[in-house]
Amino acid sequence: MLSSSDNNEIFLGIDGGGTKCKAIVMSGDNKILGTGIAGPANPLHGYEQAINSITESAKLALKDAGIDESEIGNVVAGVGLAGVNLPILFEKISQWDHPFKHMFLATDLLIACLGAHDGKDGAVMITGTGSCGFSFVDGHPYIVGAHGFPHGDKGSGAWFGLQAAKQALLSLDGLIPPSLINDKVLALLNVKDDVELVEVIAGKPAAFYARMANLVFDSAEEGDALALEIVNEGAGYINHVAKQLLKQDPPEISLIGGLTPRIKPWLDLELQQQLHDPIHPPEVGSVIFAKQQLALR
Amino acid sequence: MLSSSDNNEIFLGIDGGGTKCKAIVMSGDNKILGTGIAGPANPLHGYEQAINSITESAKLALKDAGIDESEIGNVVAGVGLAGVNLPILFEKISQWDHPFKHMFLATDLLIACLGAHDGKDGAVMITGTGSCGFSFVDGHPYIVGAHGFPHGDKGSGAWFGLQAAKQALLSLDGLIPPSLINDKVLALLNVKDDVELVEVIAGKPAAFYARMANLVFDSAEEGDALALEIVNEGAGYINHVAKQLLKQDPPEISLIGGLTPRIKPWLDLELQQQLHDPIHPPEVGSVIFAKQQLALR
Repeated sequence: MLSSSDNNEIFLGIDGGGTKCKAIVMSGDNKILGTGIAGPANPLHGYEQAINSITESAKLALKDAGIDESEIGNVVAGVGLAGVNLPILFEKISQWDHPFKHMFLATDLLIACLGAHDGKDGAVMITGTGSCGFSFVDGHPYIVGAHGFPHGDKGSGAWFGLQAAKQALLSLDGLIPPSLINDKVLALLNVKDDVELVEVIAGKPAAFYARMANLVFDSAEEGDALALEIVNEGAGYINHVAKQLLKQDPPEISLIGGLTPRIKPWLDLELQQQLHDPIHPPEVGSVIFAKQQLALR
Repeated sequence: MLSSSDNNEIFLGIDGGGTKCKAIVMSGDNKILGTGIAGPANPLHGYEQAINSITESAKLALKDAGIDESEIGNVVAGVGLAGVNLPILFEKISQWDHPFKHMFLATDLLIACLGAHDGKDGAVMITGTGSCGFSFVDGHPYIVGAHGFPHGDKGSGAWFGLQAAKQALLSLDGLIPPSLINDKVLALLNVKDDVELVEVIAGKPAAFYARMANLVFDSAEEGDALALEIVNEGAGYINHVAKQLLKQDPPEISLIGGLTPRIKPWLDLELQQQLHDPIHPPEVGSVIFAKQQLALR
């Protein structure tokens, strides 16, 4: 949890993902001093971009805190990053000649979990552009999913969007009956038929598909049968992930990420009641991680 | 059909797809004089590469025919290309300052159909890296699918491979029981767990996934329940495409593409019996197309 024992240090927390990098500057006694946001920081999509985004967001947060950016060499940084669950990327970022006093590196999953549960044991399910489950119990991390798009990330925004595109194309081909999804996909992307639709979506990344997730939930809420099937399949996967995580006996379980308000109502009722609101955002989880690691030294 | 009325001309037939570009040189009286193969020629993945592959394969075919490559300006070219079903790409290739005497541009679907049925009306289903259906009856082209990966191309090699990867990851996460597919995916890609698997498949194109298609059929043929489900879903889609095409009343229907020998035995028996072996390959279809267009002048 957020201890107040490190009064002399300035802490930086980083939450770096595929679309943006968030930074927070906190005092040793847990006051939020400033925040900053920069571009993508998943090293899987580019090492240079990732380290630049981390540094830039850190400097912005220092500036926001009224601290001169030359002080960056005096901060203790907890850095949580997407992508570093791959050992090769963890290694590469660890070897970065970083500008901080100390850097403690963790996966985005661990810092999200530490943030959600104020540094205590627990589990989180993340449904945003991607999806995954993570628990941290008695020092043991355990991951379900976090495999990426399009081969994994079921129940994520990108997955829901891909289903919408697939079903719209099948329907425009006359292979399945039309559904509310069709009109909403064509309207959102401002296209009129399957040829134009394919021109717009060909080769697009997960974040593009995630833009189509909301229309699947909208259609389901309007009673569209196909949308209901997709939503129930995606929510069913998240239920399944929760069951796997709960086998690890986490004291608490939380659901976080941009899709949370849309997908939560479709989960098993029992699970919905079990879900705890996260206590802190992931970037604060990074500060907690840095404090924990510093205390171990 | 292949007419013999153009004895004075040398014809070039091009079949340009996402992985390679095939060229054939034929005399006016339909003798095959030479063939050539070059790299990818789908303009969706790069205009310069596409026109370079077309020119290179043409020169190789001329060389193979014992014709000096300076004669390229005297050949009548039929060019069938993947990607030019998108109007913007058809337009761009049409405006190419090509090196031929005449160039007649068509989709890869039309030239495949013309080749399969010797220039007569008919329908084809293509299952290779991608999938689609096409019929040409009374001058009317009709397309089912041809939407690309991962949003379309159900029942294609890439689609089967993606299902294999998805199911292997779900199984390695303990969310579904293990199947024969797991071991075969890990063995083919020479990886030991889900983290290594994701490192290998992340961001890979359709052609990479298509390499995993055979192992799904192998597993199904060994009786694996999950593989049987995938194969039946993919084959069911191709059955469905056939039904749509047959509504256009094509005199004949053929199945072509690299996945043909694997998927054909899983199609509806009635459809299997109805399938005619293609008469010519697509690049000869391009020559047929060029001759037809020349005769219309």
